[in-house]
Amino acid sequence: MTQRILNIIVAAGSGSRFGADRPKQFCLLQNCMVLHHAIKRIKAATPGSHTVVVMSRDWADAVDSLGCTVAIGGATRWHSVKNALDATADVAADVITVHDGARPLPSAAMIERVIAACSQHHGAIPVIPVTDSLRRVDGSPANRADFRAVQTPQAFCADLLRRAYDVEYRPEFTDDASVMTAAGYTDIALVDGDPMNLKITLPMDIEIANVYLQHGAGR
Amino acid sequence: MTQRILNIIVAAGSGSRFGADRPKQFCLLQNCMVLHHAIKRIKAATPGSHTVVVMSRDWADAVDSLGCTVAIGGATRWHSVKNALDATADVAADVITVHDGARPLPSAAMIERVIAACSQHHGAIPVIPVTDSLRRVDGSPANRADFRAVQTPQAFCADLLRRAYDVEYRPEFTDDASVMTAAGYTDIALVDGDPMNLKITLPMDIEIANVYLQHGAGR
Repeated sequence: MTQRILNIIVAAGSGSRFGADRPKQFCLLQNCMVLHHAIKRIKAATPGSHTVVVMSRDWADAVDSLGCTVAIGGATRWHSVKNALDATADVAADVITVHDGARPLPSAAMIERVIAACSQHHGAIPVIPVTDSLRRVDGSPANRADFRAVQTPQAFCADLLRRAYDVEYRPEFTDDASVMTAAGYTDIALVDGDPMNLKITLPMDIEIANVYLQHGAGR
Repeated sequence: MTQRILNIIVAAGSGSRFGADRPKQFCLLQNCMVLHHAIKRIKAATPGSHTVVVMSRDWADAVDSLGCTVAIGGATRWHSVKNALDATADVAADVITVHDGARPLPSAAMIERVIAACSQHHGAIPVIPVTDSLRRVDGSPANRADFRAVQTPQAFCADLLRRAYDVEYRPEFTDDASVMTAAGYTDIALVDGDPMNLKITLPMDIEIANVYLQHGAGR
């Protein structure tokens, strides 16, 4: 049975810390916006899927004619995903992916990995090793080998994610996996992420993404 | 009183995972080797200091005429630093810095920060926020705000570091701060690191370092 996929792409951030004239997801990376890179890669890897993009009202027309539903962003990432789920309540789906619109270069193979893992787990998240040593903020050591850095897209069994979001907001909801965990859906698989699946955080990250593109990222 | 500085730069790695024809610290970044970038920035920020570079025997001539002592690398990073301390036992120093030769772009301000902190602490390490979400390898969530990513150069009160290294090797010695902590010298200050102070890990990181250089890294 083919899985029916609903993709949520979160792009409502105001980017007030980014330091450019526009939020980072709307900056140009080669021939299109960072967000368009994300949308086209997610859509291409999930033929027949439905995609909803969460945007601030001011930018909603930036995804016109890309074949996506638009939902309006909320006060936090949790509220934005909640709005996307509400806006697609009538979309039948087996798996829901949630991706950060500021990550332009998710590879098809990685998208397929997180979705495939949902047939055996409550959900799946792409992770990469932590390359720097870690310390706790209180100064005590932490072993980086005990941790993984988490990327998106994350994928979840659709019914479970909808149920997990059917609660009041809590500040510890920093990502969708934490929302699932709080609801008791703790079987979240860790699958291989991709070091080139970067999140645009600083303006020069656009140049870093260009280097990655030249090295085959996002294919 | 001016602090007498001894710099240890660790560059003995074989780079077997790097995938180039030579270890990463000997690849060219603009007009000189990655390691030479590291050496010249550390030396420029510490006038009058003594610098020892830990190298494998095969590469020892790569730092000829750079005005450094050469020590030969050991089986682990701990053994390499130990060899450097032994090779400089007669060098009078108040502060010892330890830097990773695969980090070409430490800024002068950051080097000065870790050294200055040693007048009030057992040592100091440069840290930056963790930008990706974290999970433990067992799948349980971890709050990235509780952690910092650790860079080099790290700096320590010279006598304390020498005493801390006067033990047998233990596998939990992943960096110098962990060696200090194991010896009971736990007052290690966390000072601001620099996101552009990257460690060359993959061949394309050379191109990333080029981008950072264009944005003023390492000044």
